[in-house]
Amino acid sequence: MADKITSRSEDYSQWYIDLVRSAKLADYADVRGCMDIRPNGYAIWEKMQAALDRMFKETGHVNAYFPLFIPESFIAKEAEHIEGFAPECAVVTHGGGEELAEKLYIRPTSETIIWSSYKKWIQSYRDLPILINQWANVVRWEMRTRLFLRTTEFLWQEGHTAHANPEESQEEVLRMINVYKTFAEEYMAMPVIMGKKTDNEKFAGAVDTWCIEAMMQDSKALQAGTSHNLGQNFAKAFDCQFQTKDGVLDYVWATSWGVSTRLIGALIMAHSDDRGLVLPPKLATRQVVIIPILRGDKAAVIERANALAQELNKNGIPSFVDSSEQNSPGWKFAEYELQGIPIRIELGPRDIEKGICIAARRDTLEKTELALDETLPDQISEILNTIQESMFERALQFRTEHTFEVQSYEEFKVAVEKGFVIAHWDGTAETEAKIKAETKATIRVLPEEADYIAQYRIDEPGTCIYSGKPAARKVVFAKAY
Amino acid sequence: MADKITSRSEDYSQWYIDLVRSAKLADYADVRGCMDIRPNGYAIWEKMQAALDRMFKETGHVNAYFPLFIPESFIAKEAEHIEGFAPECAVVTHGGGEELAEKLYIRPTSETIIWSSYKKWIQSYRDLPILINQWANVVRWEMRTRLFLRTTEFLWQEGHTAHANPEESQEEVLRMINVYKTFAEEYMAMPVIMGKKTDNEKFAGAVDTWCIEAMMQDSKALQAGTSHNLGQNFAKAFDCQFQTKDGVLDYVWATSWGVSTRLIGALIMAHSDDRGLVLPPKLATRQVVIIPILRGDKAAVIERANALAQELNKNGIPSFVDSSEQNSPGWKFAEYELQGIPIRIELGPRDIEKGICIAARRDTLEKTELALDETLPDQISEILNTIQESMFERALQFRTEHTFEVQSYEEFKVAVEKGFVIAHWDGTAETEAKIKAETKATIRVLPEEADYIAQYRIDEPGTCIYSGKPAARKVVFAKAY
Ligand SMILES: [Zn+2]
Ligand SMILES: [Zn+2]
Repeated sequence: MADKITSRSEDYSQWYIDLVRSAKLADYADVRGCMDIRPNGYAIWEKMQAALDRMFKETGHVNAYFPLFIPESFIAKEAEHIEGFAPECAVVTHGGGEELAEKLYIRPTSETIIWSSYKKWIQSYRDLPILINQWANVVRWEMRTRLFLRTTEFLWQEGHTAHANPEESQEEVLRMINVYKTFAEEYMAMPVIMGKKTDNEKFAGAVDTWCIEAMMQDSKALQAGTSHNLGQNFAKAFDCQFQTKDGVLDYVWATSWGVSTRLIGALIMAHSDDRGLVLPPKLATRQVVIIPILRGDKAAVIERANALAQELNKNGIPSFVDSSEQNSPGWKFAEYELQGIPIRIELGPRDIEKGICIAARRDTLEKTELALDETLPDQISEILNTIQESMFERALQFRTEHTFEVQSYEEFKVAVEKGFVIAHWDGTAETEAKIKAETKATIRVLPEEADYIAQYRIDEPGTCIYSGKPAARKVVFAKAY
Repeated sequence: MADKITSRSEDYSQWYIDLVRSAKLADYADVRGCMDIRPNGYAIWEKMQAALDRMFKETGHVNAYFPLFIPESFIAKEAEHIEGFAPECAVVTHGGGEELAEKLYIRPTSETIIWSSYKKWIQSYRDLPILINQWANVVRWEMRTRLFLRTTEFLWQEGHTAHANPEESQEEVLRMINVYKTFAEEYMAMPVIMGKKTDNEKFAGAVDTWCIEAMMQDSKALQAGTSHNLGQNFAKAFDCQFQTKDGVLDYVWATSWGVSTRLIGALIMAHSDDRGLVLPPKLATRQVVIIPILRGDKAAVIERANALAQELNKNGIPSFVDSSEQNSPGWKFAEYELQGIPIRIELGPRDIEKGICIAARRDTLEKTELALDETLPDQISEILNTIQESMFERALQFRTEHTFEVQSYEEFKVAVEKGFVIAHWDGTAETEAKIKAETKATIRVLPEEADYIAQYRIDEPGTCIYSGKPAARKVVFAKAY
């Protein structure tokens, strides 16, 4: 069962690591900076993959696979790209017992190796668009690691698209950041702010980076997904030109976009509690655990529990029974709370007599008495929907309560210790850097959502809280993971 | 459209490469020995993954993910293992801009990194069995590469299980090789011989390797999947002991098993023809292409074609229409034959008048007139089933016709140029090595299937065709990929 989990109030970072390890989601592997994603954690990733993959295909994308290795000369072709990524790469120098003539980098991201192939695939506008996604592992050498959030190797998907004009590629960038927003909010029950990164925070090699930013329970920000408008940067680096409809040559327009196993960390930090994991039903492989209370005619209780599980499974609600006698009901309650199973059903001999059972919600720990009849699958479905929605609402309320609008740098410094801060910024990298140096807070996002902009009057001009210079709009500052 | 594909009779190897590239299944990447798996090829892998993953889960397995990197000292812990794998590894010597204290090998297979974790997870018989599968990329440095069949990096799944006793682990080994056999025969329509490898051909570090062997259209053998009984070898190497039910300490019993993107190569070489890919319907993402013949009232024909596709899709038969006017019907016929779409439906204005359409089978190129009415989905389903079965039957017949029983080494040398040879072997590594040196044929499998054993009287004692010494049974020799 659970090792003791440190409480969030006592030590939030320790709580996170304790939870990840106790719930057997992941653990540090015996190789520096890497993790084992254990079956309980990988099951969450599989649910995420299934939902995202479906959304990618519905928006016209197909999957493919490109090499793990990138020749050093490729990484070097895009100047900002190599500057951003080379220092954090793992480098293969030997293969098949011999020293290699050219070093191979383990992909930290695949723009360069993919564009070396796109160059061969694209001659004419008829070859466009290319809408490819790849599910893969990537490696970025990390000095300080944290399970799921920052490890040397992680799993992700990376979309890489090629277009005939900048309007189409910009449409694609927005389409995909909105797919991520939908996924975060509807599946992860995690509200996010969609918008742009500053030049300083954007992807190395991009013209613009769009992102979704979420708030964790310690009120810090976490970047949950990015979609990059790469302009013609990579096409130029790889000399990838195509014949337009008008018969002239132009460089191809590109995007890339990705989310990673980091989302599992975000999911945990957004929703879980001191008892363990809290999973939104849509990402739970097992939605209901049935725990028979073994008194009186034990065999009859177990039989009824099994029948109930079968009935729920038949109705598309993945359920299972734990009827082991080795562990007490109390032990089982704690264990499945730790594992984040959204609903626990308790079923004893007297409940069966009375024609009822008890359903306990994992998110609120609230218990309800349910009629043990043919309406049960519907009742359970409704509770699952309620859990999914109320987890989102609770997280949204938390974010609202921890979002502060400030007018001065003094107010800013206080507020930024407590959550997201909305403030005027003069638009200069200089101010951004100074604020970061002094407070560790960064500009998380220049919001581009109408609702959010209206709520916080983001586009109202004003005075930069730091420099006192004119500011065209407000931005969102926070300390971040 | 298709570049010219060399015919099989002219040059089988060139036919294969031409097909893989023309059908856009894969291509050599710009990094030594690696391939791009293009969307058409990756779609086959996704179908394979879905079927296999379901079968793994139905047999009680869960997925997880372990690190790409293996410290040099881990690889070295199992003596046969390092001897077998170290020479073909890619080695990371630098990370984050610094030279590493210990070299990291890119996993060629994951036994060692996984057992270093299992050691931490297993204390008692209550922690067993562990039934984990991993979908991953692996790297084995190859001097001579061939798309899908042998590349430096490839994709695969690797199961790694841990058991409390040798009976259970042996059961697991057999369960999984039989899962592979079922998959090969029922999904890939590719008959395989299930059995054991000789000591010389077994996995480096295994007690026993079980395999499935298939015959390609050039009558060469291809190993399509393996399941290894690892005994206590890796548990001993990693000092992984557990407390048994009887309260004593014992080393854990292990298995591992895997199939890879090599199966895509096998699928192509088992079934495809000079026009391109031939896909068994169960592995085809798109089972039916509808080609409207655009004469007369073109809009009406296209409308009817779209309605038909919708009807088929509604009935679970993935179908699409190519109504582009840019390409002729003849061009489209060739293109979708190249892509291996199992059924082509041709639909012209006169067909619609007559209430019929023409269905062309990709495997036999046979055309049938079908009634264009509400029975069409059923008619198409039946043809798809027929294709699936007849592809298997045809491949089985080919294998039977190219399997030879011989009594002498003279006969052997002639027969082994034409297919599988069933012959008595004295059981010594010496004879095996000499035959290999003289003929390039290897012992592919010691059959363990009752039907196959009965058919070829495999367990009949006799005289070794090479040494003339007594031989307990016959084995299957062939030249192999
Ligand atoms: Zn608070
Ligand atoms: Zn022949």
